[in-house]
Parts: sequence; structure tokens; C-alpha cells
Amino acid sequence: MKKLPEKTVERLSQYRRVLVKESENGKLHIYSHELAALLHITPVQVRRDIMLIGHTGTLRKGYDIQELTKSIGNIIDSKTEQKVAIVGAGNLGKAIMGYLKGKRTKLTIKAAFDVNPEKTGRVIAGIRCYHIDDLEDIIQKENISIAILTVPAEEAIPVTDRLLAAGIKGILNYTPTPINVQPHAYLEEYDMITSIEKVAFFSK
Amino acid sequence: MKKLPEKTVERLSQYRRVLVKESENGKLHIYSHELAALLHITPVQVRRDIMLIGHTGTLRKGYDIQELTKSIGNIIDSKTEQKVAIVGAGNLGKAIMGYLKGKRTKLTIKAAFDVNPEKTGRVIAGIRCYHIDDLEDIIQKENISIAILTVPAEEAIPVTDRLLAAGIKGILNYTPTPINVQPHAYLEEYDMITSIEKVAFFSK
Repeated sequence: MKKLPEKTVERLSQYRRVLVKESENGKLHIYSHELAALLHITPVQVRRDIMLIGHTGTLRKGYDIQELTKSIGNIIDSKTEQKVAIVGAGNLGKAIMGYLKGKRTKLTIKAAFDVNPEKTGRVIAGIRCYHIDDLEDIIQKENISIAILTVPAEEAIPVTDRLLAAGIKGILNYTPTPINVQPHAYLEEYDMITSIEKVAFFSK
Repeated sequence: MKKLPEKTVERLSQYRRVLVKESENGKLHIYSHELAALLHITPVQVRRDIMLIGHTGTLRKGYDIQELTKSIGNIIDSKTEQKVAIVGAGNLGKAIMGYLKGKRTKLTIKAAFDVNPEKTGRVIAGIRCYHIDDLEDIIQKENISIAILTVPAEEAIPVTDRLLAAGIKGILNYTPTPINVQPHAYLEEYDMITSIEKVAFFSK
């Protein structure tokens, strides 16, 4: 299969999230227009994405929810476990730990890092929190390849340099500081204030 | 001026974030290619967005950082205060309260809501936390128009219905449950797991 576009991977993840929820509600089949309506996109977009991963539904019943969920997992999940570190165990770091816990079998949070002595050495939401001094050691020992950055803004760049030097291959940056990871890693950045300002602008 | 596209508003907010940071570092002018590099987009995109809001730089020095920051604020900030409620005062809700505090003068968090008696009636990060039973009363009394949704997934839809009935005009949904707000409000949705799965996929 050709390399999937970023936006397609994003939507496949969203389809799966909706499919799992609908399956929990006892639903067995879903039409492309239903998926589309739930995610505020067009049915054509849904059908195109799902065709891209080689899956088809039937005209009469739509997609089989369990089969489509499995097809998406086969494409976007890693065959082997991918290990994740949360760097910064503040409120946002803790929210992510609680939220991701047990959600995906192939994606495991292995460690959290902080400088606060009230957090380091403790287990938070089932995850061991280490002092940031041990960043490189633990990443290598635990074979961690993905980092979620939730440190204070002014720490973002020095911590990123250390993560890249330690061999991290993907960073999700939640700090308001733009970082640069090229050519060592894949980067995704999200700043809350931009989303809030967008909602504020369009709800004026 | 014509209605700005959503993506333009998003990027203007990001430009301002970077400009404020560069200004704090003592920088006075910035080139479009510098802004572009920091945000991983093209200089043409930067120049196009900034031309759209009627601002120009000079070839020799680039944009005046203070003036451009002000121009962006004139476009995307409301002339009057917009009041915000955080619905769900868990780790994510608290992270947002701490993060947004004092960042924008025209965007004020007026209230938080929760069901946990350890939180209700208290002041968290300077923000009064009310019981969710008082949602409609406080929204109307405080003239709140924007809600940030950080409740558990299964509460998202019933709480949204109450927010819309209470007159909320914009919702930022951080729960993994897709919601529908049409035609009453503007909606922005963000699910962490999608960002994490995207990073996982592209760093395999």
C-alpha cells in the first residue's frame, strides 16, 4: 500500500473511535453517511478513505462495524508495541495518562518525567514518574520511541533536544513553544489557545 | 473585510503566539520565512494570510513584531469581553484553567462546573467551581457564551444539550464523543488519541 496521507490517518483514527462507541451501543452496521454526519465531513470523504485501506461495505447494510474496526487497526496500529513517555507530569500530563490508559494495546505509556520531588519516584495513574535527569537512561532502557511533551513552555526546546539525542522517533508537542525535530523524528503540535481563539472568533 | 477562513484564523492565532514569544526575547522585526520556519509552513502562506488582514511588512526588515501582533489582535479578538466556562474540572479542565489564565484580556474564564463535592464551591486556579446543577443559572447570570467541554465521554451529549439550551454560542469539545451543535453554535473538536495515533503511525 502507498503511504497514507496525514489527514487520512487522522480520519481513520476518528472513524475507529466512533465505531468502537457505536459497537458498545450494540450497533452492528453503519452507513458512510452516518459516520460522516457524526464527524461533520462528507460521505464521499468517508467512502474514499475506507476504499484507500481496501475495505468495502454493502449498499444495503453499510459497513460491518467489527470488520471495519479491525481493518483500520491493521493499517494504523503497529504490529509491535510502541512505548510512550509523558514528559511533564502536571495537570495536562496526568490527564493524558488517565485518558490513554488501557485504550490501545499496542501503545503503552511506560514512563512519566518531572522535576517536582512530590511526583518523582511515585506511581501516577499506574505510571512510574522519574526525575527528568533520568530521561536518556529510561528511554533507552525501556525502548521508548514516542514522547508527549507537556512541560512548561520555556523547557520545550532543551527537552526536545535531549529527547532527539536519546533516539525518540515521534513527538506530540502540547506546549505553546514551536519546536523543530527534523530530520530525526515525526512531529505533531497542538496549542489549546489556538482552538479557543478560533471558537471565540467564530462565535462572536 | 470578508469572513476569514477557519484555517486562516487558526494560523493568525499561531503567528501571534510566536510573535509574542519573539518579542519577549527582544526581537523587533521578523521575516515571513522566519515565521514560516517556526510553524512548519511556507513563507507564501504566511504572506498571504497577513495580506488578508491588510498588514504589510518591508522587504528590508520584514514585519514589525509589535504592529503585526496588534493587527492580528484587532482582527481575531472580540471588541468586548467573551466569557468562558470550563465544564468538567478534572485534570484536563484544570490544565486549561491554569494555561488560559491571564493570557487574553478579552477572553475570561468565569466559571468551572463539576459534580465532585470536593471541587464544587471551591476556587480552583482563581476560578469558582460550581455544581453542574447550576449550569444554566450561572451561564445566564455571568453572560457566558463559550464552553470548553472536559467532562467524561458519556456526559458529553446531555451536557451539550443543556449548554445549547442555555444559549452557549461556541463549544470546544475535548471529550472523545462527537457532538452536534448545529445550528445554534460553532463547534471545534479535538481528541488526543487521534494525535497520538498519528504520531505513532508516522514514527513506526
